[in-house]
This record gives sequence, C-alpha cells and structure tokens, in this order.
Amino acid sequence: MSEGRTELSGIGEFGLIEHIQQMFSTKHATSLKGIGDDAAVIGAGDGSMVVSTDMLLEGVHFDLAYMPLKHLGYKAVAVNISDIAAMNALPEQIVISLAISNRFSLEAVDALYEGIRAACESYKVDLVGGDTSSSASGLIISITAIGRVSNDKVVLRSGAKANDIICVTGDLGAAYVGLQVLEREKEVFLTNPEMQPDLEKYEYVVGRQLKPEARMDIVYDLAERGCIPTSMIDISDGLASELLHLSKNSKLGVKIFEDKVPIDHDAFETAIEFKLDPITCALNGGEDYELLFTISPLDYEKLKNHPDIHFIGHMHDNANQNVMITKQQTLVPITAQGWNHFTSA
Amino acid sequence: MSEGRTELSGIGEFGLIEHIQQMFSTKHATSLKGIGDDAAVIGAGDGSMVVSTDMLLEGVHFDLAYMPLKHLGYKAVAVNISDIAAMNALPEQIVISLAISNRFSLEAVDALYEGIRAACESYKVDLVGGDTSSSASGLIISITAIGRVSNDKVVLRSGAKANDIICVTGDLGAAYVGLQVLEREKEVFLTNPEMQPDLEKYEYVVGRQLKPEARMDIVYDLAERGCIPTSMIDISDGLASELLHLSKNSKLGVKIFEDKVPIDHDAFETAIEFKLDPITCALNGGEDYELLFTISPLDYEKLKNHPDIHFIGHMHDNANQNVMITKQQTLVPITAQGWNHFTSA
Repeated sequence: MSEGRTELSGIGEFGLIEHIQQMFSTKHATSLKGIGDDAAVIGAGDGSMVVSTDMLLEGVHFDLAYMPLKHLGYKAVAVNISDIAAMNALPEQIVISLAISNRFSLEAVDALYEGIRAACESYKVDLVGGDTSSSASGLIISITAIGRVSNDKVVLRSGAKANDIICVTGDLGAAYVGLQVLEREKEVFLTNPEMQPDLEKYEYVVGRQLKPEARMDIVYDLAERGCIPTSMIDISDGLASELLHLSKNSKLGVKIFEDKVPIDHDAFETAIEFKLDPITCALNGGEDYELLFTISPLDYEKLKNHPDIHFIGHMHDNANQNVMITKQQTLVPITAQGWNHFTSA
Repeated sequence: MSEGRTELSGIGEFGLIEHIQQMFSTKHATSLKGIGDDAAVIGAGDGSMVVSTDMLLEGVHFDLAYMPLKHLGYKAVAVNISDIAAMNALPEQIVISLAISNRFSLEAVDALYEGIRAACESYKVDLVGGDTSSSASGLIISITAIGRVSNDKVVLRSGAKANDIICVTGDLGAAYVGLQVLEREKEVFLTNPEMQPDLEKYEYVVGRQLKPEARMDIVYDLAERGCIPTSMIDISDGLASELLHLSKNSKLGVKIFEDKVPIDHDAFETAIEFKLDPITCALNGGEDYELLFTISPLDYEKLKNHPDIHFIGHMHDNANQNVMITKQQTLVPITAQGWNHFTSA
C-alpha cells in the first residue's frame, strides 16, 4: 500500500459500509434488497426471505468476566432475530459459525449452546447448520438468521413519509447503564476478589445488558392490529444513530421530543449515580434492541393504547433537519453516529 | 464448571458437531435438512434454498505473511460456494461478517473486497449484506452463502447406494503441498529478509493453496449431461475424511484404489522434495475444494469421457469397511479424521 494509507478510524463503520456498498451491484432478480438495511431481502417463491448476519467477538462485544456463556448464547441469537423483527418478518432458521480456543471445555460449549437453544425455543427458530473451528485466543460467534415475510408486509428503512409518526418500543438507555455497572463491579472485583458484588438494585439495567430480547412480540402485535409500519430499524447502536438511518434512507428529517423518549426509572437513577445524562444514554447508549419505526398518522388509532409503544415525534420534509425538542423547549440537532468501532479506546 | 472439565481436544471437531447436533431438533416444515451436510436445505416456494456458512480466522486458516488480501477475499467466497456446489445447487447470494483491527487501512480493506468482488463475478453471486466490526488483533471473515436448487436435484451426503461409483474432480493434495512451500519460504524470509523467494517451479501447488476455485463448472457439467449424483461433499478436510462422511451418512462402506486417486505431477514431485508421501497428502491434505460424489453405475456412460472427473472406487454394503487398495494390492483402512482444530500444535 505504498501510495498512501487511509485510516479506517477516519471513515468509521457507516462510512466503511457505504464504501463497500458502492463497490457492489446485484444481478440476480431474487436479490430484492442488498446492503444497507437490517437484513437482505431475497425473493423466494410467493414471498420473501430476509437474511441478517452479526458477529460477536470476545473483548469487543462481550467480556466473559461478567457475561455468563449461557446468556451470551441467548444474546447472540437475540441480536440477529432483532434484525429479522426490524424487517417485520418471522424468523425460521439460523446458522452459527463458532470459533473457540482450547481454554474452553466441552462444558463451557454446552453452556453456550444451552443459551442458543433457549433462544431458539423462545423465538421459534431452528438451528440448521454452522461451522466450528479453533481460535487462537478469544471466542467468536457469528450468526446468520433467516426469516420469512410476504412481499406486501416487508418493511425497509426507506419507506417513511412526511408526517409519519415515529414510534419506539420499550425503554432506552438501560443496556448502556447496565454495562457501566458491570464494568465498575469488574474493577472492584479485580481490586478485591473477596468482595461480593451487590447487583440487586441494578437488576433491571444489568438484565438489559446481559439478557436482551428481540421484540418479536411487537411484530406479532402489529400484525394483529393490522398495522404495517412505513419504515423500521432495530436499535442496536442507539436511538440517535438509528433515527439518522431512517432519515437518510427515507430522505426526510426527523423531529423528536425529549420528554417522549422512554427511559426506565432504574436506568434514570443509575445514570445519575454514574454522572451520566439519562437522555444521552437513551440517544447514544446502544444495545437496547428495541424497535424504532414510523407509521402513517392514519394508523395511530390502532396503536395508541399499546402499553409498550411510545410516540416520540414525526418525520418532516427537510432531510437536513434532524432535531430533538428538549424539555426546556430548545432545539438540538441529532448528530450521534453510533459507536465508531475503529477508533482506538 | 466445578463438576469436571472435558477437553475439546478429546472429542475433536466432528465429535463436537455431533454433540451439538444432538442438542437440537428442527420444528419448521421449511427446515428440510439441518446440521450435518455441506449446507442446510430450506424449503422456499417450489424449490429449495441451501445455506452454508464458514469462518476464516487469521492465524488459524490463513497467514497474511504469504496470503495477499485480494486472494484471501476470493478464497473466503470460494470455500463457501464450494459447499453450495456440493449440494448440486446454484449460488445466488452471500452475506459477509468482517472483523478487522486498526492495523488495516482502507486500502487493505479495498484489496480484500476486490477479491470478494472478483469471486462474486466469477461465481455469479450477489453480495447482499453483512456486518463489520473491530477486532482486537486478527482479521476474521465469516461468509454465509445461499443457493437454489429444485427439490429433485438436491444432493445430500446420505444418498449413496451399494455399487455406486465414487468420483472425484481435479487433483488432490496440491493445496497442502503448496502450504508447505509457503511455510518454508516464510521461514527463509524471516531468517534472511534479503532473500527473494523463487516460487516459479511451485506455481501450481502454491496457486492451489492461495487461489482455490469452487467446482461450479462440475455442477453445470453434471446438469448438462443429465447426471444427478447420489451423494456429494466438497473436499475441504481431505479425501479420507470426506469419504468417511459419505460412508457414515450413507451407511455404506467405501473402497477406493490408490492408483486411481488423481495427483498432479508437480504436487507429486514437490511432496517427494518435502519427504512427504504424495498419497498421504491427497488423502489428508485438505483445502483442495474438489468435489467427491457418487453416481449410479447406470450414469457412468454420461461421465466417462469427462476430462476432469476421476473414478476412484465404489460403495459397498459393509459400512465398517472403509478401505484403500494400494498400488501393491494391499488393503489399508481409511481412518483419517481430518484436522483436529482443537489439538494444540
């Protein structure tokens, strides 16, 4: 590479994905939607299959010091199913590539697969294949999930219209706050291994980090209420980042209201304890795996009484104006860009 | 794991896969074939989709000291397409998960994706999605390939019948011999960086290691000649290992003839130079990515003039007798078990 070196940290994860996207075009008629959504859409008979893949690496995405292997197995499946949910599809199969080193025993692998099996049962998916190999040191788990959806129900990131209502499920920021608790306890443990952690008061936020659930329940609820979102994405990198994806893909602006963003009470209190701004955790925390979607105003009646869907704002015509109205009625731009994996810590 | 620790090296890769397989059952009607073949088979409309996944790790599956990134990208796709070929299917899409560290530049990533793109063009597949993340050190690339096949043409490992003829494509052992050359040149280079390697006479064997091709051409040729193999597998771990897979899955014995096993002249000579037995390289070398399949004796006429298909033996009723007849007319058991990734080097 004698002609020069461009650092990956300079373009970031999303820049890299766009860069790769530009190198490729699709040729098969069955390649209905390629790079750039939560999952690829592939024509299959009278419907479509959606395909999503995610890799989790020890030391990058999880720390076995506080992540039990069974939970890791469950989470690895859940984060992939979350992408299938974000397409408004029903998951059916997964394949798993696993790399493990000799430091793991068969019992450890069993614990991991027990978590995978529990997730397969919970999300009604079949494990149908995979690949196992050795790793020089860390544990690496890569899952590809396959779902089905009829062609009139598939939801992309790009379908929002001006005045569509922006909806979010559950609550946000708790997974990030939970991670802070776990990191602190790890430090305490490393300093004084005799100390037993007291995590009871942090049960909810820690659980959100260690045991995330894909919101398949919402996909079923939407179908039951006859509502097809106009655009949808799952919140893996943080609300701000995902809002910007919807904005960019739908070529519209987003406007949300701070006081509408759902934050759990425990997550709020714990954020304050860690001297973190709760709304910042909700906007940029990531790993909540809630669904962010837009609906036509005509569909509001169908969802308005749903106990776990929150209406946080709306889409508007100015694609360059992505803003949040704060509780003080000031207007702040939404600029977060998710996590830049390529910047050194 | 206080109750005891079972080492992974004790059960090996295939033992581990069987162990995992026993933990899972499939529930969806569309899960036609789960764990235990080259690819999963999923019902899709009036045909089937086949799905295969493979992960390549730096330091385990490749060494960037002699593997150019462009070749690595090509190979990562080819080894997955090879699994699709082994199902007698046509590949259409791939998704890629990539983990890279900051030590790689954008130019390096471009070189990798140029190889991926070349493979996509060569095998007529569309890259439709993926995931990129950072890695603490090494490069990791996990690919899932998706292919299509009509239900009457899908070929499993399990369909062979007694007296079926065992066929193998191309030649075997060269990729392993090529690896020995590359490893030696690396040592020489590390000892004396001024020394320029002279690889010309090893061009074929080194090429087999660095630039393997999936035998999609054979899949097209079989279709053109109206021949559907009764069982098929690709040779990634070595002929012996794959023969045992066909034996086990088809519940039959295999009998092959040493003098029928195709070994390239350069591979033979280079093996001798390295004091390796050429037939051992062919049986246990791995990474040739040729196809091993069985055909009904009735189909022999259709293939007998094919320039690159070799008839090396036949299936027989005694599932416990997997043997090779040597050039000296002695009978040796086929016992190789592929590479045990979990044994420390």
